[in-house]
Amino acid sequence: MKNEIILPLGFAASGISADIKQSGKKDVAVIFSETPTVSAAAFTENTFAATPVLFSKKILEDPANRPQAIVVNSGNANACTGTRGEDDTVEMAEVSANALRVETQQVFICSTGIIGEPMPMQKIVNGINKAVLALSETGLSDAAEAIMTTDIVPKIVSETLNIGNKKVTISGIAKGAGMIAPDMKTKKPHATMLAFILTDADVNKELLDYCVENSLDQSFNRITIDGDTSTNDTFIAMANGMSEIKTLKLKKGLPSTQDAEKFYSAFCKVASTLARKMILDAEGATKFINIKVSGAASKKEAKKCAKTIGNSLLCKTAWFGADPNWGRILDAAGYSGVKINTKKINLAYDDVPVVKNGLDAGTSSEDLINILKHDEFTIFIDLAAGNRQFTLWTCDLSYDYVKINAEYHT
Amino acid sequence: MKNEIILPLGFAASGISADIKQSGKKDVAVIFSETPTVSAAAFTENTFAATPVLFSKKILEDPANRPQAIVVNSGNANACTGTRGEDDTVEMAEVSANALRVETQQVFICSTGIIGEPMPMQKIVNGINKAVLALSETGLSDAAEAIMTTDIVPKIVSETLNIGNKKVTISGIAKGAGMIAPDMKTKKPHATMLAFILTDADVNKELLDYCVENSLDQSFNRITIDGDTSTNDTFIAMANGMSEIKTLKLKKGLPSTQDAEKFYSAFCKVASTLARKMILDAEGATKFINIKVSGAASKKEAKKCAKTIGNSLLCKTAWFGADPNWGRILDAAGYSGVKINTKKINLAYDDVPVVKNGLDAGTSSEDLINILKHDEFTIFIDLAAGNRQFTLWTCDLSYDYVKINAEYHT
Repeated sequence: MKNEIILPLGFAASGISADIKQSGKKDVAVIFSETPTVSAAAFTENTFAATPVLFSKKILEDPANRPQAIVVNSGNANACTGTRGEDDTVEMAEVSANALRVETQQVFICSTGIIGEPMPMQKIVNGINKAVLALSETGLSDAAEAIMTTDIVPKIVSETLNIGNKKVTISGIAKGAGMIAPDMKTKKPHATMLAFILTDADVNKELLDYCVENSLDQSFNRITIDGDTSTNDTFIAMANGMSEIKTLKLKKGLPSTQDAEKFYSAFCKVASTLARKMILDAEGATKFINIKVSGAASKKEAKKCAKTIGNSLLCKTAWFGADPNWGRILDAAGYSGVKINTKKINLAYDDVPVVKNGLDAGTSSEDLINILKHDEFTIFIDLAAGNRQFTLWTCDLSYDYVKINAEYHT
Repeated sequence: MKNEIILPLGFAASGISADIKQSGKKDVAVIFSETPTVSAAAFTENTFAATPVLFSKKILEDPANRPQAIVVNSGNANACTGTRGEDDTVEMAEVSANALRVETQQVFICSTGIIGEPMPMQKIVNGINKAVLALSETGLSDAAEAIMTTDIVPKIVSETLNIGNKKVTISGIAKGAGMIAPDMKTKKPHATMLAFILTDADVNKELLDYCVENSLDQSFNRITIDGDTSTNDTFIAMANGMSEIKTLKLKKGLPSTQDAEKFYSAFCKVASTLARKMILDAEGATKFINIKVSGAASKKEAKKCAKTIGNSLLCKTAWFGADPNWGRILDAAGYSGVKINTKKINLAYDDVPVVKNGLDAGTSSEDLINILKHDEFTIFIDLAAGNRQFTLWTCDLSYDYVKINAEYHT
């Protein structure tokens, strides 16, 4: 028996094979709430945003829509497919709505996979109908599998908490192992990543928007795999209120009660665990690297510096080779364009000093290499130019990254 | 006998081994003009600009200095080395000036190699003295070898032209195979690249400045290998007037005569040939790729779009794998942030259409793969958003790039 993660009350999910992927692996997922939800989301800002992204964005524009479903296919991104692609997305929503007995504008559509090829609509229509029939309370891990592309493992996580003596569940799934460098605002995400967080909490629209927006810097916005950002990224949160707690709200821009705060924390934990799992499954990656930039003049600069280092091929290949070469890190910080006090900058690998006041700290190469051989380590950089900070999660760049992306036609 | 490229009149050069590199390969180069020159240059803008960069920059600030020499060591970048590093650079200039019987402020100093390690000054001092003794009219190829780090082949080029019945020679050498993504203005270059162009033409300061500044977009500013920009980049041009032609000048911001224009063209040809050689020798590269972006709203946007595509790991690995995947190219254009008419965009590989008006042009995969298997090809992108353009030169990303940078401690 599979170790199923139970969905929040009132949700069902499924993932089946519709033969879109040549491998025969699962490629259509449906997530369904038996009652209308409050939803919030973030989408890619890529100029070539795929038609399902534009379609799903539109659903959110009218709060009267109250979505009930997320329908996803993997294997084809339905991006750069013109008016035919637009029609295909609408057809996906219509077929789904019909099978689920809801309205078309209650169905979010997501696609991920190859760009520029027409959708195999007969397979997709059959797949959606098959997936709707397969919906079950234990179907979330099938759904997590069906949204995968180059991912090796499905990414799934669940948190429960007690609010007013009621049990509240927050469950999430995500996909994404390459073309990953999100930088989302509620309306500005990036990267071929899909993430869905579902809860039976009773949350009003403003609080759910707040959760999506403010969880980003602690989750999907703090990861980069390859610096490539995609046409199809979508992060959707749905709350259906079935736990029958008192509605959680936002007040003066913040969670209004301790319970609302508790929910927000649990939501962030689910989002950040999903993001972490994406890095752990990054294409060809052998190491999980935390980059903690502090002492920056602004949070924006801290983030810019961390991303420049995290996307530097020379840093990423050095980490792969466990080369303690700190010159590449300072070099990347130096061309990131942020304010740095070069005579006061400090650098450490885990708790071991590497650079002190801009100069080699004198730690032996062996000690540094030992740290860089670990599966996970932290690069601490104090720019000594202010008091703002940002933490990025990234990975190394290995032969396998090249192999996967030179040989896999995405 | 080696096929020596003759230096312009009045110049001598040498390259010797000073034992800085563990390999025992040449690592100190001297270029010397027997008479004072007019010089122009561009340097890195990296916050951690190495002390030799700061030293050489300062020489140019006073036009009275009239430089006569360029002294280079490879194997150590003298970057992030504090006041000791500053003293070492001054000592290099003093030792050189003494041996060459010129003033300290007539000697440009350049260093390239590992960042953050103290300079082995005894070896370097001995090396400079040895290199000065080795100076010869046929020593340019030795100098080209001595400035190499991960380069496989020395980069050297020479052009001659007739101006007023006199022969004028323009010769150049360069190094750089990784940490290459220049974006220089006369005062704003990037990347571990060194390039030196020497001429016996009689050129005034304004025209030589013009040549350096305006050659950049046709040479070092149009290349990217890995998007990493360095602490030590230097591009220096020296003209000593020994050909005894009538002084070439700038007038109203442009070359003042047909001869001045002719000189400028030849100068650009030398710079662009050196830049092309850098891409051909790029770390692990198997292919030379031209990216021609047209139809952009501004030249800046054309360049930004071309660089985003040229630095995209997903594009670079697809080119390595000869994967015709145009979705990755449009995806990168889409996140570059430039204006694009997505319904009118066209893409071609060499002369074969790939995308027409935003949709697949219907060319067979085999035809596209055949193009991408060539050693060199051109990606044409018409953004259909204006009439400005930019051409970038880049390369693919192979297993060997990862190998070189995971195993080589730079």
